[in-house]
This record gives sequence, structure tokens and C-alpha cells, in this order.
Amino acid sequence: MSRVNRTDCEALDRADPLAGFRDRFALPDGVIYLDGNSLGALPRATPSRLARVIEDEWGRGLIRSWNTHGWINLAQRIGHKIARLIGAAPATVMTGDSTSVNVFKALSAAIELRPERRVIVSERGNFPTDLYIAEGLAALLGRGHELRLVEPDGVAAALDERVAALMLTQVDYRTGRMLDMASVTTAAHDVGAIAVWDLAHSAGAVPLDVAAAGADFAVGCGYKYLNGGPGAPAFLYAAPLLHEAMRMPLTGWFSHAAPFAFEPSYRPAAGIARAGIGTPPILALVALEVGVDLLLEAPGAALRGKSLKLSDLFLALVRQECAAWGFRIVTPDDHAIRGSQVSLTHPEGYPIMQALIARGVIGDFRAPDILRFGLTPLYLRYVDVWDAVATLADIMGAEAWRDRRFSLRAAVT
Amino acid sequence: MSRVNRTDCEALDRADPLAGFRDRFALPDGVIYLDGNSLGALPRATPSRLARVIEDEWGRGLIRSWNTHGWINLAQRIGHKIARLIGAAPATVMTGDSTSVNVFKALSAAIELRPERRVIVSERGNFPTDLYIAEGLAALLGRGHELRLVEPDGVAAALDERVAALMLTQVDYRTGRMLDMASVTTAAHDVGAIAVWDLAHSAGAVPLDVAAAGADFAVGCGYKYLNGGPGAPAFLYAAPLLHEAMRMPLTGWFSHAAPFAFEPSYRPAAGIARAGIGTPPILALVALEVGVDLLLEAPGAALRGKSLKLSDLFLALVRQECAAWGFRIVTPDDHAIRGSQVSLTHPEGYPIMQALIARGVIGDFRAPDILRFGLTPLYLRYVDVWDAVATLADIMGAEAWRDRRFSLRAAVT
Repeated sequence: MSRVNRTDCEALDRADPLAGFRDRFALPDGVIYLDGNSLGALPRATPSRLARVIEDEWGRGLIRSWNTHGWINLAQRIGHKIARLIGAAPATVMTGDSTSVNVFKALSAAIELRPERRVIVSERGNFPTDLYIAEGLAALLGRGHELRLVEPDGVAAALDERVAALMLTQVDYRTGRMLDMASVTTAAHDVGAIAVWDLAHSAGAVPLDVAAAGADFAVGCGYKYLNGGPGAPAFLYAAPLLHEAMRMPLTGWFSHAAPFAFEPSYRPAAGIARAGIGTPPILALVALEVGVDLLLEAPGAALRGKSLKLSDLFLALVRQECAAWGFRIVTPDDHAIRGSQVSLTHPEGYPIMQALIARGVIGDFRAPDILRFGLTPLYLRYVDVWDAVATLADIMGAEAWRDRRFSLRAAVT
Repeated sequence: MSRVNRTDCEALDRADPLAGFRDRFALPDGVIYLDGNSLGALPRATPSRLARVIEDEWGRGLIRSWNTHGWINLAQRIGHKIARLIGAAPATVMTGDSTSVNVFKALSAAIELRPERRVIVSERGNFPTDLYIAEGLAALLGRGHELRLVEPDGVAAALDERVAALMLTQVDYRTGRMLDMASVTTAAHDVGAIAVWDLAHSAGAVPLDVAAAGADFAVGCGYKYLNGGPGAPAFLYAAPLLHEAMRMPLTGWFSHAAPFAFEPSYRPAAGIARAGIGTPPILALVALEVGVDLLLEAPGAALRGKSLKLSDLFLALVRQECAAWGFRIVTPDDHAIRGSQVSLTHPEGYPIMQALIARGVIGDFRAPDILRFGLTPLYLRYVDVWDAVATLADIMGAEAWRDRRFSLRAAVT
């Protein structure tokens, strides 16, 4: 790539078919937001939509709105929409509960499908809540399940006929490295294991086809690339062939075949409704639906195309502008295994990120030394990437920074 | 009680010390809302508070609001407030997740504290989701736990040294009958069992002192008397003495001792934080906090006093105005065992309730024959009770009704 300047980035923005989506978000002035992989930005439509639901549906409709405003089906209706985002058939995705709770549901259902097996395989670097949930589930069951944690290149070797479930996060939250869901799922199936995918950094960020990949279960997060708001409800996908056999661990009334018949005994609902638990969180679901609807307006191929161009640009600019400062790029150059973020490491990563945030460039830091920059094609411009890297170079080059960094570090750690 | 007329009710409203609270709710015109025990009404402060959180904290603050706006502690902050409502010590209540998920947490933690015992006692008429969750948990654990379901007067006889947990709902959702938490808990403790209480129809409705009663665990609902909105987050109480020993089944990162250290292994947080699971649902929690704050403004004794006067009035008026129509009153006359609702049975209960709702008197129906009327002292007037019963009498007395009821019934069942 030849040397890039800001004018080139402006030209890229003018030619961007997704440029119009930026105005659909309420982004604050003076901020370049590179943390949509942690908390997505606010869609402009969300406040008025939520106000209408609160004032009209809750306030005036009261209890009647469960029927008159379709609250009763809201969790599944949004699930149908998310199904389109992840390449799933209709009626295979349920929304509600946190990602952690959905990991519990999916992993429990998976190992119950392989009752004679006692091993759960995952990556040592998987997002901690997934590992904690697996650890807690194994302890709860008390049947000697082993949580076998391996390095990324050790997954294939860890699979054998004792493995009940392989649980992986498709896009690594620290590095942005992406796994090939189809081939890894096939490897799991080859030993008879169930494949459970965490799509927290995939859904809304990279092209997905859970059906074609043969995934058994998948969970995902509503508050990152789906822009559903802080702590938004998560989702769970279950392959249609498993619906009849799968047993969910949390058998609340919203997973019952007839919730309002108030039957004395549990009878699981047919299909994906079995993945519900308690009364669905209507206000939070409404906010999630706005984010999902907005994402569905954008063609998936355009999203992926822009995401890769943004990360290519970011990487090129780091090499061009920041070569002197000791950053290491940990996000893969290969498009086939890159998510929608760029991660750099630096021994002074924490104070550098603090300095960036103080200047309005919001990424985040992950111990011990990772600077993460999420690249969200719906609301990020190419000039934002230029300005972010220019700010980074400016911070690193400033004498003031070199004088201050150790005291800064002392102050924050 | 001598014969009551509407003028008497108007006088009661003029003398009501809680009368001012009604204007703090956005109640629709033409509606008498007697279903706050199913979905509480909308506090007037909720829309603007939520709009501010969405636009300022999420929209402008973005990821920074986890710290700058205290999102990180929100679930526990609201828990501290709910603790005051239920007679619990500070730092013993956590909010988040659905009531069903919290029943799972509490019951699982309870039976893990009695690993050598294999019986869970509950009432056959307990709210179904509690029973379904217990059934599912027993199946998941696969250790032969028996769910021993008894009639209300059979609880004491069902308690023996094999009982790990006694799980009861304090106020029966159908009849409004209230259990004495202290004496039942003592009976459970006498055989060494853990007492798990569901306060869905108690919290915000009747005086509670979980600490004095010695309750081990309690869960409650955010969307009924707490007015937190449809599907609001629920809460979980754990007695302080259990905090160190209790093991929660869903060990997500928000129950970890150091969630943002991203440690590879699970270490439970100290205290009630251990009852967290995933990322807290900020928007839903904010709505819940408004409802809880409003309730905390009202003196508990005044709430209970008015609640009983409303239900006394309702019962007296049913006897006075509807004696001819075959209703049976199933709510106890004894104040000591009455919650904050009135329930009647009638063979034509379903079409009668439909007729009431069509005329703006909103209660609900529970199979096979129960008409439920929730009495919420914060926003209900004595004249509302008069008008509701007068409407009921009018419906029952109308020739039109007598002609139509069988076809109505045919149309709705």
C-alpha cells in the first residue's frame, strides 16, 4: 500500500455506500468511538421507540399489551430477525437473558446430549465468563466433567471420543482473530462432540452462516455490534434437528408448552421456545430490536467489505505513522481470519489508552498489554481511522508523553 | 359493617394520607386498574429518567458510563434499596435476571448447602414457574431429588430430616392468602432445612422482615408491586451468614471476585455480589429503580393500612352488592393472612372478567374459575373499589349479560 493521507480517507468516505448509516446513530461530538465491540452506539430511533413503548404500551395499555402489542411474542420475533443476521433458519433463535445465562443453557443442553462423555474443550483464552460458566456447570453437575483448555492451535488435537462439547468464541475478544466455524464444527462432529459457538464478537460484525457451518448451539451478545444498549438481552441459536431432544436446564414458565395454563408439571415447549426462561424483559428487548432492525437494513456484503477496509486502513496507518513506537500488531493480516477489530500490544498499553480516551479516541485496554479498537462499519468513517491513528502517533511522539508516561502508569495501576 | 355508599368512599379518599401518590403514576383515563399484582403501573418519572439514561449516559457517555455513571454498581445499589423494603440488612440483595432464574439460583444454592438430603418441599399450588424450575433443577442434577408437593395445611407434616429445602411463595397468587414467614421458616429450620421464599406477591405489597423471620433465601419480582416495568429484573436475597458458604450455579463474570481482571479461573465474589451472573441490564434496572424509589417514599405502615382497608372495602361491597350472583370469596377475611389482593371464584369467571375489562375494570382471570383483583395502595382510590364492584354488580344484573354469557363463554374458551 502506498503512503496514505487524510485526503485519501475523505475520498473513501465519499465513495462509501454505507456512509448514510452514520446519521442513524446519536454519536457525541468530539469523540471517535472505537469501542462498539464492547458497547454499541445509540441508534437515533431508540429513544422515541422506547418512549412510545413505555408511555403507550406500558402506561396506557398496561397488562393488556402482552396481547394487544405483541409483547408475548417479542422475544421470538427479535429472534427471527437475528436468525437472518447469522444465517439461521426461522424459529431457531430465542432472545432474552444475559450472554452468560445463554452460555449456561447452551453448554448444559450440549452435554446432556452426550451423557456418557465427560470432557468440555475450550480455549484457554476464551472470554472468561464462558470459562467460568463451564467451570460452575461442571461443579454443579458433580459428574466429573473435565474442562480441557488448550491454546488456539491445540483444539484439533484435544478432540477425542470423550469430548461431549467443544465451546469456542468465534472471534477472539483480545486479538480479533476469527475461527472458521465450518471446519472446526466438522472436526467436533467427527468425534461425535456437540459444537457450541459464542458469537459475541461475530454477530453483526462478520458474515455468518451457522446453518451451513452445522453449528449445534450458538449464543451471542445484544449490546456490542447489535447496538441493543448496555446489558441488552442476548440470544441463543439451536439447530433445528436438536429442538426435540434438547433439554434446557432452566425450565421457567416461558419455556413451558402452555405458560398460561398454569399446569402443575413441566412440559417443554416445542421448538426454540424451549430456550425461554422467565417473563421476557420487554423494555430491553424493544431497544435491542431497534439495533437489529438497523443492522438488517445494511447489506451484509457491504458491511464486511467496509469492515475489512477500515481494519486494513488502520493497520496500514499504524505501520506508516507509528512504526517507531514499539507497537506489535496482534490482529491477523489475513482477511479470512480477521474479525472487525484491530488490536495492538504495547508495554505501556494502559496509559496510552488513557491518553487516547482523554483526547476523545475511545478504544479499550485488556490486560496485560492490549489496546483494542473496534471497527463498526455502520457508524465509523475512514477519516475517523485516520484521526485516531494520527492522535496515537501524536501522543507517542510528544515529549510530554515520554516524560509523563511512568508517572501516569503509576497513577493508574 | 353498615351499608356503604360511594360518598363514604369519597370521604375515605379525602382522608387518605397516601392520596398524593396517585398523581405520581401515569394512569390511563377510563380505567380502574386492579392488576398491579401482575404488571405495576407506570411511574410518571420513568419516561424522563430512562430518556436521560439512554440519551446522556448511553448515547453520549457510551462505554465510559460504566464508571462515570455508576452502571457498574447499579444492580447492587438497587439491591440496597430493595433490602429496605423487605427488612434485609444492606448488601444482602442483588438485582438482575428474571424471577425464574433467581428461583433457580436460590434453590440450587439451598440444596447445595444440604448435599446429603434429597427432598424439596413446596406447595402444589405454588406459582408454576417455581415448581417447573425445581423440577428442571432436580432433573439436571440427576441425584434423585424428590419434589414433594403438598396442600397448604400439609407443609408442617411434610418436613423431616430428609428435606434439603422448603420453597414457598409467601402470598398465594390465586387466593391472596399469606403465610407467616417467621413460623414457617422456624419449622423448616427445626428439621435442618433451608427456607427459600418467593416474595413475588409480597415485596411492595405487605410488611416484610426477612431478617427477623430468619429466611435463608428469598426472591422477588420487579414488575408487580415494585412498578419496574414489563419483565423488569427480579431480585435475590441471601442471609448474610450464608454468603461465604453459598455456591451459586450460574458463575458468570459479574459474580467473579475481579470481573475485569479476566482471570482464567473462577473465584466467587465475596458477599451478595456472588449472586450476579452476566452484564447487568442497565436500561431495565433504571426503570426498576424509579419504581423502588417511589415505593420507598411511602411509609410501610400506611401502605399496609390502606391495602387492608381497600381489600376490606372490596370484600364488604361484594357481599353488599353481589350477594345474589354466586361468587365465592377465596381471599381470607383474617388480616394476618391476607396479602394485597381480593380473589373471587365464579363458574362463569372468564367471561365475567372479559366483560369487566371491556368496561375498563382491569383485573385478571386464573383458571379454572378465579377472578383476581390486585389492590395497590399507591395508586388506587377507595372510589375505584366502589366503581369496580358497582360495575361487577351491573354486569351480573344486566339481562343482556344473562342472555349473552353462554355465547361469550363459547367464544372465549
